[in-house]
Order: sequence, then C-alpha cells, then structure tokens
Amino acid sequence: MSYRAPVSDIAFTLKHMTGVSELLADGRFGDLSEDLMDAILEEAGKFASEEIAPLNRVGDAEHAHFKDGKVTMPEGWRRVYEAWCAAGWAGLSAPEEFGGQGLPTIMLAATQEMWNAASMAFGVGPTLTVGSIEAFAAHASPEVQERYLTKLVSGEWMATMNLTEPQAGSDLNALRTRAERAGDGSYRLFGQKIFITYGEHDLTDNIVHLVLARLPDAPAGTRGISLFAVPKYLVNEDGSLGAANDLVCANVEEKLGIHGSPTCTMHYGDKDGAVGWLVGEENRGLACMFTMMNNARLIVGLQGVGIAERAFQQALAYAEERRQGRSPDWQGEGMAPIALHPDVRRNLATMKALAHASRAICYACAEAIDRGRIEEGEAGKTWQERANLLTPLAKAFSTDIGFEVASIGVQIHGGMGYVEETGAAQHLRDSRIAMIYEGTNGIQAIDLVMRKLPQSGGEAVRGYLSELRDVAERAGASNRVDFGRIGERLNAALDDAEAATEWLLSAVGEGRISEALAGATPYLRLLSLAAGGAGLARGALAAASSADGSGAAAAHIHTARFFAENILTASGGLKETVTGGAASILAADPDLLSA
Amino acid sequence: MSYRAPVSDIAFTLKHMTGVSELLADGRFGDLSEDLMDAILEEAGKFASEEIAPLNRVGDAEHAHFKDGKVTMPEGWRRVYEAWCAAGWAGLSAPEEFGGQGLPTIMLAATQEMWNAASMAFGVGPTLTVGSIEAFAAHASPEVQERYLTKLVSGEWMATMNLTEPQAGSDLNALRTRAERAGDGSYRLFGQKIFITYGEHDLTDNIVHLVLARLPDAPAGTRGISLFAVPKYLVNEDGSLGAANDLVCANVEEKLGIHGSPTCTMHYGDKDGAVGWLVGEENRGLACMFTMMNNARLIVGLQGVGIAERAFQQALAYAEERRQGRSPDWQGEGMAPIALHPDVRRNLATMKALAHASRAICYACAEAIDRGRIEEGEAGKTWQERANLLTPLAKAFSTDIGFEVASIGVQIHGGMGYVEETGAAQHLRDSRIAMIYEGTNGIQAIDLVMRKLPQSGGEAVRGYLSELRDVAERAGASNRVDFGRIGERLNAALDDAEAATEWLLSAVGEGRISEALAGATPYLRLLSLAAGGAGLARGALAAASSADGSGAAAAHIHTARFFAENILTASGGLKETVTGGAASILAADPDLLSA
Repeated sequence: MSYRAPVSDIAFTLKHMTGVSELLADGRFGDLSEDLMDAILEEAGKFASEEIAPLNRVGDAEHAHFKDGKVTMPEGWRRVYEAWCAAGWAGLSAPEEFGGQGLPTIMLAATQEMWNAASMAFGVGPTLTVGSIEAFAAHASPEVQERYLTKLVSGEWMATMNLTEPQAGSDLNALRTRAERAGDGSYRLFGQKIFITYGEHDLTDNIVHLVLARLPDAPAGTRGISLFAVPKYLVNEDGSLGAANDLVCANVEEKLGIHGSPTCTMHYGDKDGAVGWLVGEENRGLACMFTMMNNARLIVGLQGVGIAERAFQQALAYAEERRQGRSPDWQGEGMAPIALHPDVRRNLATMKALAHASRAICYACAEAIDRGRIEEGEAGKTWQERANLLTPLAKAFSTDIGFEVASIGVQIHGGMGYVEETGAAQHLRDSRIAMIYEGTNGIQAIDLVMRKLPQSGGEAVRGYLSELRDVAERAGASNRVDFGRIGERLNAALDDAEAATEWLLSAVGEGRISEALAGATPYLRLLSLAAGGAGLARGALAAASSADGSGAAAAHIHTARFFAENILTASGGLKETVTGGAASILAADPDLLSA
Repeated sequence: MSYRAPVSDIAFTLKHMTGVSELLADGRFGDLSEDLMDAILEEAGKFASEEIAPLNRVGDAEHAHFKDGKVTMPEGWRRVYEAWCAAGWAGLSAPEEFGGQGLPTIMLAATQEMWNAASMAFGVGPTLTVGSIEAFAAHASPEVQERYLTKLVSGEWMATMNLTEPQAGSDLNALRTRAERAGDGSYRLFGQKIFITYGEHDLTDNIVHLVLARLPDAPAGTRGISLFAVPKYLVNEDGSLGAANDLVCANVEEKLGIHGSPTCTMHYGDKDGAVGWLVGEENRGLACMFTMMNNARLIVGLQGVGIAERAFQQALAYAEERRQGRSPDWQGEGMAPIALHPDVRRNLATMKALAHASRAICYACAEAIDRGRIEEGEAGKTWQERANLLTPLAKAFSTDIGFEVASIGVQIHGGMGYVEETGAAQHLRDSRIAMIYEGTNGIQAIDLVMRKLPQSGGEAVRGYLSELRDVAERAGASNRVDFGRIGERLNAALDDAEAATEWLLSAVGEGRISEALAGATPYLRLLSLAAGGAGLARGALAAASSADGSGAAAAHIHTARFFAENILTASGGLKETVTGGAASILAADPDLLSA
C-alpha cells in the first residue's frame, strides 16, 4: 500500500518525451536548470511518499466528518498540510511578486502528479487553490490581491470554486445564484451551490470561496455571469479575521470515493447576503473561471496518471509476493509468483504502459502551456493551440485510464482486491471522480472536436500529427530488434488518426455537427493513443541513443514496444467507429432504446 | 432506481437467438411449452421487480451485520426470502424426485438473471444453493440426500461452497483443510476457509456447508481432495435440528460492494472437529465441485447481464429526465434531455447493446447445457462441447461488460453518479466482484484457450464459428437498409476470430503455451464479440421476418446494427494483439517492469 514517487520516470518523461531540456538549457525558465529540476522533483517525491501517502488510507476510512455545519478533517491531515505549506509547496507556481516561486507549469504538473498519487483526496484541495491563485493574479484588483492572494500563495488559507448548482451541472446558462451591489464596492450573494470540493474544512483558518453569480441587470446566458471572492470569515483592514460571513456548509455528500475530500453543499446569503468582492469585471466572470479551470483540467488528468502509477506499484508488489500455480518461467520452489503468469504479465504491462503514455501526454501539455506563455508571435500562438489541443486529451484520456488501470489492479489482487483493507479498491473508487469533474470526459471530447480541431482551420492538429509522424518514422528507421513493431504500429495508428481527423474536420466544416459529436469520444481515445504511443516512442529513441545499456533504458524501450503492439492495435477499430458509427448512434432515440 | 424485469427481451432472446423454440415445440422439455415459459418469466419478473428490487438499496446501506459470530441480514430480507421460497422459486431447476420442478437450465438462467439484477447481493445466496443441489443430487448418498437435499430444494435451508483458503485462491493443489474418518461413517473437519459467500446469516435456520478437504492418506494435489457436507446445526434422525456443529464464522469482510451478502471467514474444528458427511467418493471431491461450479459460472455471467440491464434502465430514465444544454433534436422548451445529445446516445446504446449481446451468449450457453443433457450420441457430445466452449465466454465477457456498463451508467449521471444516494455507484461496486469470483476472468480465458479450444481437435470451436458465419451471411444477404453493415462487420469479426483461433490452436498444439496464454484474455473478448454480434444479428433477422413493424422489432434490429458498427469494430485490433502481442507480453519481467 506504500507509494514510491516515480521521480526518475517523471524526470525521464520531462527530459526525453518533451522539449523541456532545450528550454532549460536556453535559460527560458530563468534560474531553473536540469539540476534544480531534479532536486525539486526529488524533494517533492520524498514529501509525497513519506508524508502524504500515509494519509490516504486514513482519509478513506475516517472520511471528512460533517457535523453542525463544520467539517473535521481526518487524523493527521492538518499537520501534514501545514508541513507542506512550510516547505513552500503551496506557492510553487505562483507569481514571485505575490510570494510564490514562479516555477513553470511543467514543475506544477510533476509535483501535482505526486501529491495526488500519494493521496488524491488530499491533493485535490491544493489543486483548486492553485487555480484560484491564477484567477486572482490575472483578474483581481490590487486590494483584493493584497487581502487574499498572499495568504493563498503561502497556503495559510485555501480557496474553492463554486460553479455547479442543482439544476445546472455543466450548463452555465442555467446558473441562478444572484449578486447585488451593496453600494460600498462590495456585493451581497444569495444562492446554493453543490459539489463544492473542500467547501468547508479545518485545514486552514479561513477559506476563500470563488463564486459565480448573476447581477440583477446582467444579460441572460453566460455573458451575464460574474465572479466573486466570498471569504468564510470577513477580513479586517489589518488582515486579521473578522466576523463569520453569511454562508454555511449545509451538507457533505456521501460519495463513492475520495472520502477524505469534503464535497459540500454551500448556502450563500440565508440571512442578509454573503459579502463578496468582484474578481475581474462585472459580467466577465466566465473568462476568470476559464483562467482558473484551464490548468485544472491538466491537473485532473495528472490525478489519473498518479493513481494509475500508484495502482501499478501496488499490483506489481502484490504479484511478486503472491504465489499461485506453476509457470514455465519459475524454477524456484513451490508455487510461482503470479507476476510470472503470462496473463498477469499482460495486465501489469498494460497498467504501466497506460500510466506512462498518459504521463507523456500530460507533460507535453504542460510544456505547451509554458511555451505558449514564453514564446513570441506565431510560435507562441502555435504552442497555445497545442496546449488547447492537448488539454482535453490530458484530462479525459488520463482519467479514463486511471480508472481502467485501477480496475486491472483490483483484478490482479483477485478476491483480496474486492476487500477494502487491501487498498486496491480504494484506488478504483477514488479514480472514478476524475472522469466526471472539471467537465465530464464526454464534454472534453466535444470540446476537442468542436473547438480544438478547427483551430487555424485544422492546421493546429495537422501540425501536431505531422510531428508525431516524424517520431514514428524515426522509430521505424531505427531497425532495432528490441523496438519490435513500434514504427509500423505507430504509423498505422497515425494513418487512422489522420483519417478520423479529416473526417471530423469535414463534418464540422459542413455543419454535420451531430455526426461529428457522435464520434467525439472514440476520436479522443484514438488521438490519445497516437499521442501517447508517440511520446513513449520518443522516450524509447532517447533511451536507445543513450546507449548506457541500463535496465531503465531497456524498460523505456519495452514500454513503448508493449504499448505499440498491444494497445495501439485498437486504432483501426476506433477510426472505423468515428467514420462509420454515427448513423446507428444518432438513431438511438430514447423511444427506440426502451422499446 | 427501480428495476423493471425485461421479460419480453428475455423471451425474445430465448425464442429468437437460440433454438429453444424448436425444443419446446418438439416436447423435449416435457410439459414446458412456450406459453408456460412466458407465464413463468412473467411471474418471476413480477417477483424480482416488486419484491426483491426494493431490497437492493437497503442491503447496500445496512450491510449484513456481524456480531459475536452471528450475522443479521438487512431489514426485510428474511421476509422476502421466505416469500420467494413459498412461491416455489428455490427448487425451480431441482429434480422433481427431490421436490423440485425439474425445469431446464434456460429457465434457471432467465430467473437468475432477474433475481440478480433486482439485487445481486440477495441473488448470490440462492445461486450457490442451486449449485449445491446439483452436487447433492449427482453425488451424495441417499441418506445425505434425504437429510439435506429436500430442505435445500424447498429453500428452508441454504448451502455454501467452501473452497478458498488464505494461501490458496484459485490453486486447489495448495488446499490444507483436513478431514479425519470418525469411524461411524462421518468425518471430522479442521481448517479455515475464506471468502465464503453466505457462510453465516439468519435467512434460514440451518446452513449446509460444502467443504473441500484432504484425508490424512490422500494423494498430493487435486487428486486428494474430498467434498463434505458440514451443517451449521447437526440434524437429528427425525430431521429436527440438534446441537451446534464445531464451526464458527470468525469474520465478515468489509468489501467494495454486495454489502448485503456476508462474505465470511469460516473456522472448522476449533474444538474437536466439525462433523461432516462425505459427498461423492473419497478423493473425488473435485468432480463434485465441478458439478457445483459449472452452472455457477453461467449464473455469475448472468449477474453481469442483469446488472448491465439494471444500470442501463437507470441511466436511460435519468437521461430522459435530466436536462442540460441544447440539442438539434430538441424542439421543446428550455434545455434538452441529455438522452438526446449524441455522446449520451452513444453511451446509452453501448450499454444496451452490451447487455443484450451478453444475454445472447449466456442463453445460448444455457441452451447448450440443456441440449448436452437431452440429446443423444454425437449430437449430445457436440452440445456438451458447445456448453464447455461458451461457459468461459458467458462468465467472463458478461461480467466484464457488467462492470463496463455500470461505469458508463455512473458517467451518464455526471456528478450525481458519484454520490451514493443515486444508486448508480452501487451497481459499479456490486458488479466488480463478478469478474473475480467463480474463477477470475483471466482464469476463464486460460480455460478457454487451453481446454476448450482443443476440444475434438479444434472442431468444436470451428463448428461453432461456422454456425456464426451462416448468421453473418444471412444478415448480409438480407439487403435491408436498417441492417446497415451488420453482415459486413460480422463477417470481418468472424475472419478475425477464425484467424486468432487457428493461431492459438497452432500455438497450443506446438507447445508454445506461454504465447497462447499471453493472448488468452483478448481472444476471449474477440470470440465473445463475434458470438454476441451473431446472437444479436440472429435476433435482428427474426425481428425483420416477423414483419410486424412494431417498435420492438425495430429496436432489436437497431441494437444489432449499433453493436456491429460501433462495438464489433474492435475485432481487428484484438486479433492483432492475440497473434502479434505475445513477445512484448512475455518480456514483461517484474525486474523490467520495476526498472
């Protein structure tokens, strides 16, 4: 049940499956060098493995405890949270002018993977605060920044995001919470929000709620939404805490997993209105929320990567320990470790390959976000479009496989996997939410097809696919026996991805929107397989050229080969579904389905 | 959250996707006619929907409660169990000479699907008793039959299967529980068993444990295992209950799901030995156990079908109710029901198609079991081999898709799916065990490749594939627009299944066992897709020729088409993995995986 942060795999991914090394060498991240990066990863890995990981089971067993409007967090959580803040992790990626360390998204991604792998229920709270820091830094007034932002950067307070209402899940048009101008520059808010992660807890003495609401004279729809900062306790001029605000946690959900993370129903303004301050401009709240949510999607993807990694580690340890039956490869006494049985080898290798492929996608996305910020002109636009393109892949594919891998982990444990004390089932339960929150994976697929593919008239995705093609050609040209059919399979997957892409671009372009939407989910999977396979192949090429003959190099090559020969094989079927499945999907009326 | 037993779909599957109608018309099942079959299905559906289904949520919330060696079942469970027995359901398939109704396996299958869909935690107890009835009827002495069997047939007592020990999951060679001859014809048992479903409860006044154990002079390995009947309370000559036997429930597991079903650790012989009676011959216990387990695999498969059906019903009802966003197909006021969104249509149609395809496989397996019993000579052998072939498909594919469908159901509910009160998450948790118990799905795949494919030198599976080919040809020849590409896709899937089959037969024949085992799981999926797709196509052909133009006929055709065009598309990739993936699977050593 322990977790060993995969520091060297993460470093390898950053250095050899992305162009980060080049950026570091060119000084594009200021003081951040490869050595410093390695040192930070090492320290983060230590904290994740030694301090956070032991919280995971406790949180699941104890739950965040709700009573009389207050939430008490599980045993030990506040102590570890405070140590985490004291070590400076809360402000890792925050701007230096507000007390942060100003490190790039790649470092945020790597550390977030580790916090969330160690304990997803613990990691998700700080994840939301990271997003709020970006929103405050980009959009809030200097006064609001001074009052709140520095406390969030230090971790002294945490923040929440209040979007969902009972009648409005993913549809912001239906938002009803209202805000009234108080006349003194502040506002009064009235409404109910549901599914508010860390809406109430005792890790920090104050909580800053970021709440979407409508002003009385706001236009209808999403152009009439504003964002407000609503603190749990009002803050005095000197920064000390004042009176309790007019808000209350009315309920905490009983969920399938992440039991340590309190998912709250929040009531604002049951008395005379919750006091809030505008963040950004009136009726421009959506832009602020997107600032907050954009990296959140990547980080949720990393929850998928992290939980896949952790489930893999646990399953491998169990499979080496557990003995059953005989195996041709076992010359020892008695029964063979189940890790030697071919079917279990396949399961373990699948877990690892999916975890590594999704990591490659997420870190490529993080690189693109960073490059979109630091590159100028056309290059900057290209990288921004790349980040836009990869974000739904990073979020949806990684969380899909996080759950799949956790399920394989349960299966490897056999009957023990179904018993809660083993811990394998917790990963399954915890991982399931990541496919849903921050925009369900179906919505990610729609975003990919409707907004990301058409970027620059399709040239953004075409340029990306052509880069992947270069990797496939290089892998094919390497002619190494240990590469197996990496090049061949990757080229075939890219053929499929290109055909599906062009089909979808035509469908969207010609207004056959329903047909395009029908294939969105299998297309996201197809493009992710190609992207992940190419990332792994890039790593295999680097490992091969390093020629150090180490076990790690052989392992990276094997992972890429296994993925190509056993997982990329799905590409043809996915393409066929995208290009030929729409008619029977669109015919699936509720009446027909229930006939 | 309610469940409406799909009586007409089940009847359609039996009548039009199997050859059952022919058997009924020929009087091969005695008094059982189509009319009687329909009447029984109707009654069972009513009991499942109205009486059992309401137990499901209660069982999940309350759990089977363990204290001081006793298990108290959830509120209302004993009342419903007694009503179920009073209605005669316990002895449905039991021999008439022991008070049963002697109905064939097809009827057992249909009713078990409904009990387990209504509440899997409730259904699993009687499922085990069904298996024990078969073992007692086939192997026990007349005295033991008289003392125990009639009570099991009436449902007055229930039975358990005691196989697993802490060190021995699926490997019976490692079994340690010992039995000593008492000299009076009885035995004394000593040992511990784990994961004993319904090992202790208060639904019945006595429980008959069927326990695998070794005699002191038994040969090593599985040829030294005997089966014993060990009652919770000893039974007096007059049939009344006597003293408590020397056995105790030492613990009940805290599991991921089926909380209403007590999973017990049983201690036998902590004092002077648990009194038991031999079932079958000494050292021939394995044969008895296989009698008990064979149908159990099919019934566990039906748990997968049932939970998929129930999850689908719930998701469809939610998707028709829940409104979000706009859809081109929605002309009503306000937001559209999410069931109209293309991505949700795809999800709903996938749930239904997988449920129906797995049902087709399970009922074809039930038909084969029945025919294997009633046909003579070569035909009988062919049908027995067919049943052998289909059993691992019925078990593994159906339970795999049970979990997959439950997970799609959670996704359709969005955030509400992650909240326990909705009930969608319970299906996910409950369904997960069926992939593990009665032989993990990996073991089913190994059984398929190593024991079932080589039947009659490969002719059993070849004959089966050639029957499926006939269906594909007929579907292709129908030239109906509403069939879409059913024939084309099914033929392609059969090409893939045939190629993979021949590759595996060669590998097994040439002793390349590890290579064959490496592809076992994807092969099981491939063959199941072909089998399920052909079953649905057979239904579509029947629906088309019925020409009644009803909504139900159109729905059956649509399901077959959707499956062909959106799910059968995976066949090519699976074939490639089977025939080309072994090298990288077998290279996946624990050292390499952890490097």
